[in-house]
Parts: sequence; C-alpha cells; structure tokens
Amino acid sequence: MNICRTKAELKQQLSDLRKDGKQIGFVPTMGYLHEGHASLLRKSKADNDVTVLSIFVNPLQFGPHEDLDRYPRDEKRDVAIAEECGTDLVFIPSVQEMYPEKPLTSVIVNQLTDRLCGASRPGHFDGVGTVVSKLFHLIQPNRAYFGMKDAQQVAVIQQMVNDLNMPVEIVPCPIVREPDGLALSSRNVYLSAEHRLQAVVLSKTLQQAMKWANEPEMTVERLLAKVKVNIDKASEAVIDYAELLYYPSLQAPEPVALLQNLKQPLILALAVKFGATRLIDNRLLDAMEVSEHVQNDDEVQASPGNRYGSEPELCR
Amino acid sequence: MNICRTKAELKQQLSDLRKDGKQIGFVPTMGYLHEGHASLLRKSKADNDVTVLSIFVNPLQFGPHEDLDRYPRDEKRDVAIAEECGTDLVFIPSVQEMYPEKPLTSVIVNQLTDRLCGASRPGHFDGVGTVVSKLFHLIQPNRAYFGMKDAQQVAVIQQMVNDLNMPVEIVPCPIVREPDGLALSSRNVYLSAEHRLQAVVLSKTLQQAMKWANEPEMTVERLLAKVKVNIDKASEAVIDYAELLYYPSLQAPEPVALLQNLKQPLILALAVKFGATRLIDNRLLDAMEVSEHVQNDDEVQASPGNRYGSEPELCR
Repeated sequence: MNICRTKAELKQQLSDLRKDGKQIGFVPTMGYLHEGHASLLRKSKADNDVTVLSIFVNPLQFGPHEDLDRYPRDEKRDVAIAEECGTDLVFIPSVQEMYPEKPLTSVIVNQLTDRLCGASRPGHFDGVGTVVSKLFHLIQPNRAYFGMKDAQQVAVIQQMVNDLNMPVEIVPCPIVREPDGLALSSRNVYLSAEHRLQAVVLSKTLQQAMKWANEPEMTVERLLAKVKVNIDKASEAVIDYAELLYYPSLQAPEPVALLQNLKQPLILALAVKFGATRLIDNRLLDAMEVSEHVQNDDEVQASPGNRYGSEPELCR
Repeated sequence: MNICRTKAELKQQLSDLRKDGKQIGFVPTMGYLHEGHASLLRKSKADNDVTVLSIFVNPLQFGPHEDLDRYPRDEKRDVAIAEECGTDLVFIPSVQEMYPEKPLTSVIVNQLTDRLCGASRPGHFDGVGTVVSKLFHLIQPNRAYFGMKDAQQVAVIQQMVNDLNMPVEIVPCPIVREPDGLALSSRNVYLSAEHRLQAVVLSKTLQQAMKWANEPEMTVERLLAKVKVNIDKASEAVIDYAELLYYPSLQAPEPVALLQNLKQPLILALAVKFGATRLIDNRLLDAMEVSEHVQNDDEVQASPGNRYGSEPELCR
C-alpha cells in the first residue's frame, strides 16, 4: 500500500495504477476510521481493480464554532485499517496542499442543502461539495463510496454529480451499527459513558418508527410527534431535528398526509445532541426504491468480528 | 468529422478517440463561428491528437433581459468552418440534453466575478463556470482553448480549474481582429452600418492607451480619464465600463498610482454599447508575463486570407 501526501505524488502513482484501463474505486474520509469506513473500503475493493482512500479533515466544511480543532485523528491506526482492507493507495494531504491559496471557487448545491444538517450547519455542504469536487478531479475514480449515515450528503453529492456530469458513479453503502444499534461515527468517542448509553435512543426510535409507520391512520405529523416524544425520554437528549422527507429530493410531504398514501421513498432523519456532541442517524422507509446498493432492512452490524467499532473503549 | 448531439453519443465517440492515450484539445463555443474561434480550433489541432468543438448557447449565462433568443445561430456554416479547421468531433447538444432537469448545482467563482462584465451581467459567470464544468466533465480534455477577448472569462475559468484541481490545461489565445481593428465577436452582426464604423473606437483607444501608458507621469486615473474622453468622441458610444486592473487577479490598483511603478501585468478592459449592442475589448499592458500563450504585441488580424471575419457583409 502506498501513502502519498502531495498532489504531484498522487498524480504519479495514479498514472501508474490507471494503466491498462484499470477501474478505480475511491473512499473519501476525514480519517479516524471505523467499521463504517472499512465497509466502504471492502466494497470498493470488491468492485474495482484499485482502491484509493483519502484522509483529509476539510476545514471548509466546519463552521466557526464547530469541532475542527478537536476532531479526532489517528493516522497510524487509519493506515493500519486501510492496509487490512486491501487499500492500494492512501492520499493524506495537508491543508496547505489542498488549499495553497484562499480558494475563490465553490461548488454549491441549492435546495437540498437548506434543510436538515444544512440548516443546522450553514455552509457545511458548500465545503463538502467543493472538497469532493477537488478530490474527484485529483483521483478521477470510476466509483466513489459514501455511507448512508450521511444520507443528506449522499443526496447532495449525487445531485452535484448529475448536474455537473461528473464521470463517476456514486455508490451509497449501508449504515454500520454497534451491537446495541448506535450508528458508527468518528464523533462517538466524544460521548461520556452516560451519553453513550442514552445515545441508543436514535436507532431504537428509528426502529420503533418503522412499526408506527405501518399503522393504518398514521400521518407525517403524528409520526414525528411520536418520534420526538420517544427521543425526549432520554433525559440528556436535545433534539436538533427530526424530519420525514422524500428521498433523495428532501422535499417535505404534507404534515397531514397519510403515510400509506405516500408512494415515494421517505427518509426519517434525526439529529440529537448529547452535551456538546451532535449525533445523526436515519432510516429509509422504502429502501428498495432508493438504490439497489442500499439494503436498509438488512443493515450491517459491527459484530465482535468487525474490529473497528467506535465504542470509546475500542478506539483509544 | 463526427457530429454528436447527445451525451451518450459523445461518450461513445470519445472513448474510441481517447484510446492509446491520445491527447484531446477542446474548444467550447456558443457557435456562429468566426475567425477567432477558427484560430482556437487550429491551435488545438496543432497541439493535440484530437480536437473537439462544442456549440451550445447556454441559457444559464444570459440574464433575463439579454439576447438569448436573438443570439445568432448558423449550424451549417459552423460545421463547415469546423471541418475546414480539421476538427474531429463536434458536440451540439440541445438545452434539454444539457439540462434535462432544473440544475440545483452551481460552480461559483467569487471576487473575480463581481466586476467588469460580472457587475454588468449578474449571474453571467455562474452560468459560465457551471456549463464549462459540465463540458469539461463530459469531454475530459487535456487542453481547453479560450480567446483573450473574453479576458475575464479566461481569468475566471483558470481560477476555477486551479481551485477545483480540474485536470485540464487552460490555453488563452490572442484576440483576432478585423483589418480596421475591431475585435471579432458573434455579436458584431447586430451592428448597424454607422455603429460598425464607430465601433472601431474600442481598439483604436486601446492602441492609443498603450502610448499614453508609457508617458512618465501617467497615473491609473489619468489614463482612464483619457480613455473615456477618447471613446466619447464616437457619438453613439455609451461606456459601460473602462477599467485598468491587475491581471488575472482583477484587483484594482490605486487610482493615483504611477503606471511605471506598477510591476504586475495590467489589463485595460472596455465595454461599450452602440444602441442595443454591447461590445467588449481589452489589452494587456504587460503581456509576456501573463502567459506564454498570449502574444499581445502580435495580435492576429483577420486578413483577407482569413475567411471567417464577422463583418456583417461576410457573415450572412
């Protein structure tokens, strides 16, 4: 496995790897890898001749009061995980390498980005769109792999790729969860022991909501009310948002609409704070129509055999 | 020479042409080709194995009160010129083909676009950045050719390419002029006979300004005052802007600065209206430093041997 830190090295290595029409799979990350990232690397490895991982904590997608400075990092461990997953090339650029001068150009996806995490984190998706564009241009992958935990990010990037005719296939991959249901996230290490216990309320509520959604008279607003009541049972939980939207358009159905009358795929998306730590999770109500890649009813669990869980005790 | 009208045909044709590592040169245009476009095609032909021309009048870069509907078109003549210039492939998509749905994504270059034509035509450069991104992704050229008549466009696109790490070399090419000095433009056909005569004031003023700029006590504001007085001598000319800026940063020097003390390349850029027709022209004061491709002191003239002048009598 090769590691490169500059665009020039990357270009050189890729031009060697790309020879003979080899297919390139790409997994962009901010590092501090967990089993969710590992599942993307393994999927890329299975689909392509060459797998490229990038590790870059992108300042553009952090707000001024967000956790850029304390975002967890462990390059040595990341490199070991990448190697075990059969990654061919790891690109670990510095901020200076990615932004040698103040960039004047932004790739902006409108409409999809003014809700959910876009509303809570203004400018976040402009930073995501811009850095993903840069990485796509630098690596020119045939396929790029993204986890559905960041479902809005997947929708935004797919829209960007479609609108700008980028020659890359976006492959959404299932959420990977701890045995108790918590969605894996690099930010889970921030949680105190008590918050970690309570954080399971997100996945439990999503699971419960799938049952409520099948009740005959269930409306959008009634479902969301039940979801919020359920989350509030966790004493430390502070809801940022709980929304039911069409996916991937992220348009809101009428609050009074009966769920059984809504034909398109819907996403139930949650963002909940525990102290300073903001967790997100989601579930698709009609997964099969969203993407053949996403198997929502059959989500992956980080079992004991999957070593890269994000439980605090496993991570540091 | 092949003509294709869909993204699918284009992809197929390019994949054949790209084999064996062939170098692709690309000339994006809005059609109604003149000798300026022809010079870009010939330059691409000389530099690359394969030359691709696109003809697309991009609605995104026209304002609501601009000349989208009456923009001149002559596909048959364009195709003949392209063929004579040795073009390999012409891409002529419909609006529906380029924008099958309302695009939500914009590629926006800040700062460079809030002045000159960007100030006069709000949103124009967002449309340019977005469509050029799309075309670059569809064609994936090694080099792309742009005329320096649209000097701000060249600066904006070069900035976009740098900021987003697009794998394409931008090649700026010299302005091509009528024998009397008028810069070639598809919009020159709009000019009445009287306006056509007066329109020479742009190039004559730029030429004169090169001499004024060498006067020992000449300042930015004094030069611009002389430029404006000179243009106003044409009775029908209405100045939109006349500015002296650093190039390609498009930052303004101090008005009181002595030109002889300004070390960086400068551009003198003009936009002048004759009736409803808005013409632009420019000259670099220190051309050699801007780009080795641009030979400002040696601008190309559309001589009688160059058949694709935009003189009204030659065009229709």
